[in-house]
Amino acid sequence: MVQATTLPRNEAGIAAAIDTLKARFGDQLQTGQAIREQHGHTTTWITNQAPDAVVFPTSAAEVSEIVKTCAEHGVPVIPFGTGTSLEGHVNAPAGGICIDMMKMDKILAVHPEDLDVVVQPGVTREQLNTYLRDQGLFFPIDPGANASLGGMAATRASGTNAVRYGTMKDNVLALEAVMADGGVIRTAQRARKSSAGYDMTRLLVGSEGTLGLITELTLRLQGIPEAIRSARCAFNSVDDACRAVMMTIQYGIPVARIELLDALSVRAANAYSGLNLPEVPLLLLEFHGSDAGVVEQTDMFASIAEEFGGFDIAATSTAEERSKLWQARHDMYWACLQLRPGAKGISTDVCVPISRLAECVSAARAKAEDMGLLAPMVGHVGDGNFHALLLIDMDSAEERAKADTYVGWLNELAISMEGTCTGEHGIGQGKRPYLTQELGDTTRYMAAIKAALDPENILNPGKILEM
Amino acid sequence: MVQATTLPRNEAGIAAAIDTLKARFGDQLQTGQAIREQHGHTTTWITNQAPDAVVFPTSAAEVSEIVKTCAEHGVPVIPFGTGTSLEGHVNAPAGGICIDMMKMDKILAVHPEDLDVVVQPGVTREQLNTYLRDQGLFFPIDPGANASLGGMAATRASGTNAVRYGTMKDNVLALEAVMADGGVIRTAQRARKSSAGYDMTRLLVGSEGTLGLITELTLRLQGIPEAIRSARCAFNSVDDACRAVMMTIQYGIPVARIELLDALSVRAANAYSGLNLPEVPLLLLEFHGSDAGVVEQTDMFASIAEEFGGFDIAATSTAEERSKLWQARHDMYWACLQLRPGAKGISTDVCVPISRLAECVSAARAKAEDMGLLAPMVGHVGDGNFHALLLIDMDSAEERAKADTYVGWLNELAISMEGTCTGEHGIGQGKRPYLTQELGDTTRYMAAIKAALDPENILNPGKILEM
Repeated sequence: MVQATTLPRNEAGIAAAIDTLKARFGDQLQTGQAIREQHGHTTTWITNQAPDAVVFPTSAAEVSEIVKTCAEHGVPVIPFGTGTSLEGHVNAPAGGICIDMMKMDKILAVHPEDLDVVVQPGVTREQLNTYLRDQGLFFPIDPGANASLGGMAATRASGTNAVRYGTMKDNVLALEAVMADGGVIRTAQRARKSSAGYDMTRLLVGSEGTLGLITELTLRLQGIPEAIRSARCAFNSVDDACRAVMMTIQYGIPVARIELLDALSVRAANAYSGLNLPEVPLLLLEFHGSDAGVVEQTDMFASIAEEFGGFDIAATSTAEERSKLWQARHDMYWACLQLRPGAKGISTDVCVPISRLAECVSAARAKAEDMGLLAPMVGHVGDGNFHALLLIDMDSAEERAKADTYVGWLNELAISMEGTCTGEHGIGQGKRPYLTQELGDTTRYMAAIKAALDPENILNPGKILEM
Repeated sequence: MVQATTLPRNEAGIAAAIDTLKARFGDQLQTGQAIREQHGHTTTWITNQAPDAVVFPTSAAEVSEIVKTCAEHGVPVIPFGTGTSLEGHVNAPAGGICIDMMKMDKILAVHPEDLDVVVQPGVTREQLNTYLRDQGLFFPIDPGANASLGGMAATRASGTNAVRYGTMKDNVLALEAVMADGGVIRTAQRARKSSAGYDMTRLLVGSEGTLGLITELTLRLQGIPEAIRSARCAFNSVDDACRAVMMTIQYGIPVARIELLDALSVRAANAYSGLNLPEVPLLLLEFHGSDAGVVEQTDMFASIAEEFGGFDIAATSTAEERSKLWQARHDMYWACLQLRPGAKGISTDVCVPISRLAECVSAARAKAEDMGLLAPMVGHVGDGNFHALLLIDMDSAEERAKADTYVGWLNELAISMEGTCTGEHGIGQGKRPYLTQELGDTTRYMAAIKAALDPENILNPGKILEM
């Protein structure tokens, strides 16, 4: 685990860039301490490293102007959406200019006949889905937080629906982006598929603002299913629950969501969200399809669950009950923090082949217990991805060291199981050594791409790569 | 349309590299004219540009050795699979060493519980599916030709099943590749999803051997559906058929295949494959699901088709009839060539947003008729992708010029409709100017990536980019 290291600051360049940008952008640029700190990293344990100024552009042309100014003075540029990333993505370790994209919040075009939409990067997923609802369409990626779509693309976000609908890499058709030299590019046309040259769309998706700044997204949409049914099922152990998940995926049941909560996180959810769930390991599920189809899927799942001792299976097709359940799932991060008021949450994010899931989750639980760590666990288990949220007193050097040890141990375990240290949160500042551990020499070629596209290393420096 | 331009040859380097490789690889390296020409471009109108030698490695380590030798001498390296690409991908415009991957044809590991498989690049899709059948699994991407999986990844292939299962970009989990400096990398772990750094997997998929040579693939698999049903439906016009496709996609019917044949290509199929299909525009479809589900899907499609004057709807669940139908579809390229014996086929490959499909296909037909070109049309219309196969007497300068004009006109039309000049065949030698036309300045950043990863431009030079 890397504490937020500080990089050398180009003081003269930063001052000059701010002068130029202030003259050009006036009140669109802010330098007050509070606003700067709000734009440093907020939702996690990582130290806040505030930028020197925050600018609020309204168009790709303005973003390009800002980047050109910063390039001229060798000053870092950090893109910002809703600030809900968990790995220090929006910190400014070398200072610089934060570009807050949230004034670029327009839905530019919906093409219902093509099942796609064109949006600015500051549009949030809830804003988009509210807008689309009347047309019977929705955008399926749901990381929990009401994140901006630009930020979700930049971090290759996924979440509860990914088991059925994929991640951001599968749902972005094309991007407009401002590159390190200020050039504005379009990565692809609007056709559903293409073999036209290098896949710049997917190179930018997940590049965490280090290769280009996303200024427009063309996203694939889905029709709202005829029927949606949610269900929950209790298990005697996390191991049994994981085995039921493995079998469900192997049988090809097209679950739209299949989420694990361990007993501790169920307790947190009950307390925070006023629910009355049985405080044992639970799976929460959602099925999408025709009226008959969702019942068939629920029944198939129930048969599998029973083989693994699943009990207390409850299914519902009411929107209200369903919303309450998923809202509780989405609020889990905040709910778990309440298990130990004052503690910070450090979330792990390993993802392993589904055949190794039960083993990995069980080992992670046992290790946390051994080490005396309070660590509720939840997971997008249909993808083999789960999170342990370590609740740590950051004033205790001993606890910080323990958390360090645990995170490193779990990342190594996942990597040894052909898994990854990050299923969906990204590398950011925190996981850079683990990326090298996971992919070895491949990071050398990633660095070559970074150097080719951003030779002065001004785009979100200190993230992803150790350079 | 670009004729295969010749690039400057490094004669001394080529001779030196062949000497070194011959000493190391013995009979694994061949320099006979016939074998060299077989490894130049074969299936299309583009002039054959044979490599200077063909080498048959059996491992990534051997590929790495070959690339290192070629790098040392500044000699081009051209990867080769089954040679079924259509845009001059395997030509050697500057000479050099062809690396034939077909001795690397092992299926290394099947993980049924994870729905994935690890293969060498010379495994063909039919070989893989035959191997998997007993386990109830299949690999869904089907470009028609029995192509190698390495080649399919390199060209981002898709084909008839893409409307449901996506393209190679969606079905490759991870790659092992040899880079221009001989380094061997692994792009990702085997987990189903990851946010670990730049998406090197998808950067290599579709890079046509210009950024790295694929030496191993981890592929996603699907369970063989409980039921498969195929159907055909006749229409009075291509326009009506396209409108039925648009509506089918918009209704979210999860068709596994939805293919258009115009009257001319139906005639070709009847003659070549001994069928008795009505010689009018046809849609061929396939539905995957439960026994009840495929009937429901067929009925939903039939209702839509009837709205657009569809008639003579015939559906079947027999494997034999289905195979016959799809074999005829797969043989279409060869069937169409028989419409004009001695002619060469030049296939267009535009792909447009589905809302523009009917308009684009109709315009393409009208233009071919206007210009007096014999051009049967078939299409993966569920993706908005279709092919006109221009049957051209290559000895006639007038016909060649007409074909040039037509291809350029159609690519421009598709681009003006927010579509692409290539849905699945790739850029290769033939479409380089259109890539620039389609994506403009974006190609400059693609060139920067190419220069960073292959500074000596030894990996498949003269493909994708005009450099």
